[in-house]
Amino acid sequence: MNRKLRMGMIGGGPGAFIGAVHRIAANMDGAIELVCGAFSSDPEKSKQAGETLGLDPARVYGSYREMIRTEAALPTAERMDFVSIVTPNHVHFEPAKLAMENGFHVVLDKPATFTLAEAEELEKIVTNTGKYFCLTHTYTGYPMVKEARQQVMSGKFGAIRKVYVEYPQGWLSANLEESGQKQAAWRTDPSKSGIAGAMGDIGTHAFNLAEYVTGLEVRKICADVNTIVPGRKLDDDGAALLNFSNGASGVLFATQVAAGEENNVKIRVYGEKGGMEWKQEDCNTLLVKWLDKPTEIWRAGTGYLSSFAQHNSRTPAGHPEGYLEAFANHYRNFALAVMASMKKEEPEAEWLDFPGIRDGVRGMLFIEKVIESGRSEEKWVGM
Amino acid sequence: MNRKLRMGMIGGGPGAFIGAVHRIAANMDGAIELVCGAFSSDPEKSKQAGETLGLDPARVYGSYREMIRTEAALPTAERMDFVSIVTPNHVHFEPAKLAMENGFHVVLDKPATFTLAEAEELEKIVTNTGKYFCLTHTYTGYPMVKEARQQVMSGKFGAIRKVYVEYPQGWLSANLEESGQKQAAWRTDPSKSGIAGAMGDIGTHAFNLAEYVTGLEVRKICADVNTIVPGRKLDDDGAALLNFSNGASGVLFATQVAAGEENNVKIRVYGEKGGMEWKQEDCNTLLVKWLDKPTEIWRAGTGYLSSFAQHNSRTPAGHPEGYLEAFANHYRNFALAVMASMKKEEPEAEWLDFPGIRDGVRGMLFIEKVIESGRSEEKWVGM
Amino acid sequence: MNRKLRMGMIGGGPGAFIGAVHRIAANMDGAIELVCGAFSSDPEKSKQAGETLGLDPARVYGSYREMIRTEAALPTAERMDFVSIVTPNHVHFEPAKLAMENGFHVVLDKPATFTLAEAEELEKIVTNTGKYFCLTHTYTGYPMVKEARQQVMSGKFGAIRKVYVEYPQGWLSANLEESGQKQAAWRTDPSKSGIAGAMGDIGTHAFNLAEYVTGLEVRKICADVNTIVPGRKLDDDGAALLNFSNGASGVLFATQVAAGEENNVKIRVYGEKGGMEWKQEDCNTLLVKWLDKPTEIWRAGTGYLSSFAQHNSRTPAGHPEGYLEAFANHYRNFALAVMASMKKEEPEAEWLDFPGIRDGVRGMLFIEKVIESGRSEEKWVGM
Amino acid sequence: MNRKLRMGMIGGGPGAFIGAVHRIAANMDGAIELVCGAFSSDPEKSKQAGETLGLDPARVYGSYREMIRTEAALPTAERMDFVSIVTPNHVHFEPAKLAMENGFHVVLDKPATFTLAEAEELEKIVTNTGKYFCLTHTYTGYPMVKEARQQVMSGKFGAIRKVYVEYPQGWLSANLEESGQKQAAWRTDPSKSGIAGAMGDIGTHAFNLAEYVTGLEVRKICADVNTIVPGRKLDDDGAALLNFSNGASGVLFATQVAAGEENNVKIRVYGEKGGMEWKQEDCNTLLVKWLDKPTEIWRAGTGYLSSFAQHNSRTPAGHPEGYLEAFANHYRNFALAVMASMKKEEPEAEWLDFPGIRDGVRGMLFIEKVIESGRSEEKWVGM
Repeated sequence: MNRKLRMGMIGGGPGAFIGAVHRIAANMDGAIELVCGAFSSDPEKSKQAGETLGLDPARVYGSYREMIRTEAALPTAERMDFVSIVTPNHVHFEPAKLAMENGFHVVLDKPATFTLAEAEELEKIVTNTGKYFCLTHTYTGYPMVKEARQQVMSGKFGAIRKVYVEYPQGWLSANLEESGQKQAAWRTDPSKSGIAGAMGDIGTHAFNLAEYVTGLEVRKICADVNTIVPGRKLDDDGAALLNFSNGASGVLFATQVAAGEENNVKIRVYGEKGGMEWKQEDCNTLLVKWLDKPTEIWRAGTGYLSSFAQHNSRTPAGHPEGYLEAFANHYRNFALAVMASMKKEEPEAEWLDFPGIRDGVRGMLFIEKVIESGRSEEKWVGM
Repeated sequence: MNRKLRMGMIGGGPGAFIGAVHRIAANMDGAIELVCGAFSSDPEKSKQAGETLGLDPARVYGSYREMIRTEAALPTAERMDFVSIVTPNHVHFEPAKLAMENGFHVVLDKPATFTLAEAEELEKIVTNTGKYFCLTHTYTGYPMVKEARQQVMSGKFGAIRKVYVEYPQGWLSANLEESGQKQAAWRTDPSKSGIAGAMGDIGTHAFNLAEYVTGLEVRKICADVNTIVPGRKLDDDGAALLNFSNGASGVLFATQVAAGEENNVKIRVYGEKGGMEWKQEDCNTLLVKWLDKPTEIWRAGTGYLSSFAQHNSRTPAGHPEGYLEAFANHYRNFALAVMASMKKEEPEAEWLDFPGIRDGVRGMLFIEKVIESGRSEEKWVGM
Repeated sequence: MNRKLRMGMIGGGPGAFIGAVHRIAANMDGAIELVCGAFSSDPEKSKQAGETLGLDPARVYGSYREMIRTEAALPTAERMDFVSIVTPNHVHFEPAKLAMENGFHVVLDKPATFTLAEAEELEKIVTNTGKYFCLTHTYTGYPMVKEARQQVMSGKFGAIRKVYVEYPQGWLSANLEESGQKQAAWRTDPSKSGIAGAMGDIGTHAFNLAEYVTGLEVRKICADVNTIVPGRKLDDDGAALLNFSNGASGVLFATQVAAGEENNVKIRVYGEKGGMEWKQEDCNTLLVKWLDKPTEIWRAGTGYLSSFAQHNSRTPAGHPEGYLEAFANHYRNFALAVMASMKKEEPEAEWLDFPGIRDGVRGMLFIEKVIESGRSEEKWVGM
Repeated sequence: MNRKLRMGMIGGGPGAFIGAVHRIAANMDGAIELVCGAFSSDPEKSKQAGETLGLDPARVYGSYREMIRTEAALPTAERMDFVSIVTPNHVHFEPAKLAMENGFHVVLDKPATFTLAEAEELEKIVTNTGKYFCLTHTYTGYPMVKEARQQVMSGKFGAIRKVYVEYPQGWLSANLEESGQKQAAWRTDPSKSGIAGAMGDIGTHAFNLAEYVTGLEVRKICADVNTIVPGRKLDDDGAALLNFSNGASGVLFATQVAAGEENNVKIRVYGEKGGMEWKQEDCNTLLVKWLDKPTEIWRAGTGYLSSFAQHNSRTPAGHPEGYLEAFANHYRNFALAVMASMKKEEPEAEWLDFPGIRDGVRGMLFIEKVIESGRSEEKWVGM
């Protein structure tokens, strides 16, 4: 990798949690360089952010439209290679579309878009432009989640029967949005988040994790979706019974009002002969369970893991990697794939294992269906 | 406690797991003495069991009817004080009824009866006879489960919003009943278990735990109930969305096909200000969680616990007590209450905190409704 | 087992922690019956204890001498079979000697005696009388500790290289003995405990655990022994470097001033190819570790364990057993061995796997040497 | 931070584990840019490494002497600001000295030098040149280790009485150095590592952690140091009894032959009223323990932590950060301090909280004394 990939960022100005995470993830492996940005819809704030980040002021833009247009006109050797879009959901589709249509690859924060229709259109754009597209569903970037998928797909557990996936948080237990907390404000505002609150923000992560690890698709859903905190405009809690493509059943729950919980993503999958458990709190461990023999503690950074898990670690076993490294794995794999395409080389299978537009469409379908089911008197809603 | 309470046992012959557990639980605190039994419907097997247990052969009976009739005719100073019924579900109601109507207190394994109607009738008999009745829902015998209830009831977490209760097991992942495994055989046989398999065997435990800890009642349920192992005659898996009397919502799941899981009962309850988590695997710990301060690890055997938790420990902190002690707590509290009534003394509140016929009726209602909901196309079934 | 073994107890009157534990342990499996006792050196207190325990007043004695003499004169079919001695250390040797010399088997709380010389004499008495003798080193009664020993002895880890054993408690962080707390008072009184405080009370447990699990003997020791709480008369803290018979090295520490610690016994043993870890806090688990493959979680109550571990469980996996069951295992094995000898039958190897007088002598040697080393300017003290 | 700090690297060529870690740590926060390097003593390998890293070939040097000389001659606006030295121990002192004497700040991998004398001389050079010097003792970069120190120093636990610090690894259980594994080879070679193997490589980390968290200095040490694997030239295992400046005692052990252990750094500290426990395996948690109330689980990323802990996190609670972030914290704090000095601004106390030359001298003293004690027949060696 003889030069760094050049990144432009849309969103991620002052006070934005996820923008900073994207930058750290992009920086970590030294393969990506932030060269330009439109960090805020307020040009002054964008400028400030650019300064803080040490960017050339000439490449700090007042809007994403300006950025894409201007960068596209720069010489190949200078212009950005891809954009990273870290805005609230209502500003996902347009910049992603514009970027790809102007020849840029795209990294996009989840959920993919504001509506399912947008996601479906974006899928067509990805296909038509042939650009690389990465949706940052963080949790599938963890090496032990990749290992989980490889083990499940290998058939070692037999046919999958049960899937339990959960994502409890507690930080929205009080009405933070009224106090002006920025993270809470846009996530609970239907004009920025879309039709779902918690279901879109974290339910989609749980859903994506379940489909990624099992390689199965959810076919039917029966959901209980709630707005628990008084005055809140979107759901902050939900649970769903799931039915998978192979007949397996499951339970998904996600909540932002489990007071005292941090960010405890967890998945358990069981087949005929055994099963597995992964939780983010102990993210470098995959528990592998068997009917008749001891549970095994598979650990990140060891030599006995699949190539997919090994490729996504930076340190030997016992040197904990975490959320930022999982995030960085998506960036690194995306970058490796883009670099390979630039060099007309064949990418490795491990590099292509990052979430794409198909995950984005599935996620938006989940949002639509979980909300529909939450309002329905009928038990099952197909999807 | 100047004399031991005299116990007669119905069921619990050779190969019975739960009968042995009941005997250990009754023995543990030296307050109860097994004096007679009808251990099997086969008089020869009953006799053998009596011999193994070192009982006077004259008090080993060929049937529970014979035992209750004969013991009732013995002098007060000799006859058993109570019966412990540890037979499969289809032989719960009759011996319990007969015992109480002949003046004996009753300890009964769960679920209470074969049908809801029987449970409701049993409730009347308990009321009419005034006998003590204990239903051995083990998990509410744990000191830290009692502590959990006391803390929730104290209001320290504010109004309860969310309840997650789960009970995954894996031991029925294969069709053990066909191989003649005795424990599997009766539990999967509708003529012995009733309309439910896993939902009756372990779902009722989870349900009881949720209602006990929260002090709330479930009002609506939406269930997915499955028979996963081919050839099985009853459900071996289920999950349900729950709606509680105060508007709280929840999720319950119980399965016997989570290959590799042992007996991992777990409950989490969240209120406006905090929450709690207890799991049987780490049964001497109660995690108490808060929105804005560190999670606390409350431990069995410490001096800072409620009187209910302290009363139900035998050793100082750091000397793990477990399943058998939890079971023994029910026996000890039942014995203390019976002893007090014999001495015309007022029992302590802590002694009366064992599951009774009301829990039994609720459990049978759960079984009926979870199965009904599992078959229904409508989302919610009231209960 | 057609009749219960008859137990007499020496010590264990009001306020005695360990006496109650011994009774529960003896009761648990229904094979032992408490028939008499000399519960206190104060005859009135002994009488009260006997009443509380529901004993025949004629068999509640004012002294152990009276008890042993009187019981020895009773008809065989009536008199006690063994004594359980649960007094402070200075009243261990005499009653044990007297009991064995009068034909009774003995269960004795640890450490064996007041001095090493007494222990060595007791060893001769055990040999000469041929009576069964059980020293209640609780931790070797845990099924997963027995499993640990079996695995180490099998050679699967190769030659043992390292042993780490630790026993931190915090309950003596303040000068409880001055406030009259009975448990603290005798343990910190040289006239009752002997030359060691913490080293005798809990250091001996750690030492015994290390020698039991590895099958090795400690040959050299280098200790730092401290009295940390002002005004205390015996050590309340210590640590030692260990050297084993096969050249392996190790570390042992035990303290009663680790404020906030409960009773966290833990042992780790490593050989050429792998190792193992057991801690009482998670007592039903044995971690088995390997150089090049996943750590395994071996669990009590499973079918894949050694016969020694299986024999010492009462319930299937996932039903936590704990400290009282571990204690009861020693009683049950002792009872099985005594019963077999009464019937002139050969005991199973698993029954004989309880700590005996050899453990007692080793423990007293440890006490002597750890205190000697603590006072020495030389690095190593042989043992 | 308006421009990136420019870093030159010495060492860290192909196959070097720690060099890659340093680069990730430097990259992570986007404040440091690698501009030049002398990556190997073999100029060809250095060149290759520079290419892989995308550096300007003109600034990839064949030796550190060439690099320091050439960079020092570049215009201020271009030349590197600091060097990061990641070579084996025998190549620490000279480049560090040369760099500082030529006006460059220094980041140096631990242990500081090859001998204690070198470390003492380096201390004078740091003082005389006034350059910033950071020694990368990773473990003190963890936010919860910083929190631990803040809590201990606050006096909330009372006077410190006991310190247990341990660092078991298993990766050197076999003679890897003979098979040519590069990491094993230099660490077990006295000409590259110095007088100590495991004691220098990981014992120094444990020692540093103990002194950092407690704010105390070790005054006496009694060590057992072993070479366990046949054919090895340096120690691979050791344990020591410790005596601290305030009279507290402790135990330190570090081993590289605990087969099956990864990198399990752990520290426990106890005072009169309570204590704390931190282990790298669960690095975002600090357990705070009390005599009479529940243990508390303090968590990284929460709002209730000290400013020192908060400053060293990048994400909210529940987003695990790990080893690389801890490492990056040292780089970030070093960079913030250097930047402040460039701007003639006063650095924050939190920025200066990275390990320096004093830690380096203490570490080399530990190495000297632990080896001396290991060979001594006397119990205590002063330090």
